Amino acid sequence: MWENFPAIKDDLAESYAVMEKKVRIRNKEVETTIHDLLHSGGKLLRPAYFILFSRFGSATKKKHKKLIYTAASLEILHMATLIHDDIIDDSPTRRGTPTVQAKYGKDIAVYTGDFLFTVYFDLIADSTDSFSTIKLNAFTMKRILIGELDQMHLRYNTDVTLRQYLRRVTGKTAQLFSLSCFEGAQMGKADLKVITSSHHIGHNIGIAFQILDDILDYTENSEVLKKPVLEDVKQGVYSLPLILAMRGHQKEFAPYLKNGAAMSQEDVTMVLSLIDKYQGVEEAKNLAERYTNKALKGINHLPEQPEKQLLLALTKQLLNRNY
Amino acid sequence: MWENFPAIKDDLAESYAVMEKKVRIRNKEVETTIHDLLHSGGKLLRPAYFILFSRFGSATKKKHKKLIYTAASLEILHMATLIHDDIIDDSPTRRGTPTVQAKYGKDIAVYTGDFLFTVYFDLIADSTDSFSTIKLNAFTMKRILIGELDQMHLRYNTDVTLRQYLRRVTGKTAQLFSLSCFEGAQMGKADLKVITSSHHIGHNIGIAFQILDDILDYTENSEVLKKPVLEDVKQGVYSLPLILAMRGHQKEFAPYLKNGAAMSQEDVTMVLSLIDKYQGVEEAKNLAERYTNKALKGINHLPEQPEKQLLLALTKQLLNRNY
Repeated sequence: MWENFPAIKDDLAESYAVMEKKVRIRNKEVETTIHDLLHSGGKLLRPAYFILFSRFGSATKKKHKKLIYTAASLEILHMATLIHDDIIDDSPTRRGTPTVQAKYGKDIAVYTGDFLFTVYFDLIADSTDSFSTIKLNAFTMKRILIGELDQMHLRYNTDVTLRQYLRRVTGKTAQLFSLSCFEGAQMGKADLKVITSSHHIGHNIGIAFQILDDILDYTENSEVLKKPVLEDVKQGVYSLPLILAMRGHQKEFAPYLKNGAAMSQEDVTMVLSLIDKYQGVEEAKNLAERYTNKALKGINHLPEQPEKQLLLALTKQLLNRNY
Repeated sequence: MWENFPAIKDDLAESYAVMEKKVRIRNKEVETTIHDLLHSGGKLLRPAYFILFSRFGSATKKKHKKLIYTAASLEILHMATLIHDDIIDDSPTRRGTPTVQAKYGKDIAVYTGDFLFTVYFDLIADSTDSFSTIKLNAFTMKRILIGELDQMHLRYNTDVTLRQYLRRVTGKTAQLFSLSCFEGAQMGKADLKVITSSHHIGHNIGIAFQILDDILDYTENSEVLKKPVLEDVKQGVYSLPLILAMRGHQKEFAPYLKNGAAMSQEDVTMVLSLIDKYQGVEEAKNLAERYTNKALKGINHLPEQPEKQLLLALTKQLLNRNY
């Protein structure tokens, strides 16, 4: 996806090379797991935002290596949390692809995640220039985790509120986008104004990104069934379209919302038609659009320079998806 | 166990208080899990060695808070790795106590471990004065993990060598004892000679400690069966007494070494009698003693001051166990 962004292609390739080098380990299964993940899921979105924001400052030349390492650290942290989430979900597949634990067992999944945490830690130690950055990273890691715990805690809860959803999504996804943008602006030594707004821009991108990702569970066709699969819903993870549609109508939904395998294809059909009736997907899209617009507005206020256009292009490409 | 060590009781209590404060989290299950762990297993051995070694330098007064935080970080890292190990072992109990995953499920076990990693990371950021300390911590974390992976990789392997065992134990246990002693000497600004030997002393203590812990699997009476339980052996984790007894006699052992539940009480009895025949436990004790003596010799070479006697007393108490 980076062909349209030649200005950052080299930096991303360098970060990717650092990642590949740092994840080498004398254990075939862990190495294969990470290798697969790097080659399939690795869209390097977080490193890309980091690099673009770093260019708003003047410090990019002499700090080149540190910037590359930090960019890599962001993707590694993202990968580590993804792997551990799959253990919790206990799901054999995620969006059609087998999860690490389904392929290699949960032992490997636990240790691969842990190993990536150590790689992350190591990259941070190599790249930061201040202890406050380390504190910020520790804080972000903790917030991500609390987001995951909230999600677990609220499973199968039909009363989950929009507010609870947003808090969970903030932790789970927006924190890391925030950190990516903020660390970029800060390490690049951008103006204070850019540093401050980078944080909000990242937050809004992250929220919109997660809402759109959650919507897929209600709209994307599984190759086998040719129907939305409600994978998350079956796991008890009720996300925005369902939450919005259920408001005031919990009793209508309740009979069809069952635990995992107990939910039949008929239940799925009923839930989808109820979401349709109460326009859950449309309303979720509207909210995603509001966050997208906030993000774009923030980017529009950044100083005029080529990276601003790239940020606009990237964010539009990412968030104006076709459903 | 710290009544005999009034000189470090206060510092340990302070570290404990820091741990209690830092592990607070808005999730009942995770909090209870950590609370249980803190109140049952938390012997604070690693913080104790850290504090004792820090006293060999002159910097303890003005760095008091940082020392306390580092002491806490060592115990937290230890707890995090313990919890994730139990997931791998898939064992309902460890030495008679239910594991976290047995009590609360593996979801909570994964996240509790992850949460403790973030607490650890946060404590390090608050306490260190150099990036090299952070690098060293990242390195130690990685070595611990590789030790665990080695252990997993060698499961049910009857050809596991003494060398492989020692490498695994070095990663799994000795690294963290090493780090505790070394970080203490370094942060306290002890003489270079003390700093260097602190690392070896910690290593030897760690190896002896783990050998003795492994021996328990072959000697300790389970309350129910009144017999050694071979918990680890059933999980395929063949430790020193078995490894030493099996050398050259793999064929004799093989028929009785089965996977988990498949191993009957008769198999257990046979394996124990074979270990007895080839003096596996005695030889393992001899090796533990050699490491203990190396540690004590190292401590004996430290400068004369009260902490030297405390280190001797603590190490003897820890490693001269009754079987």
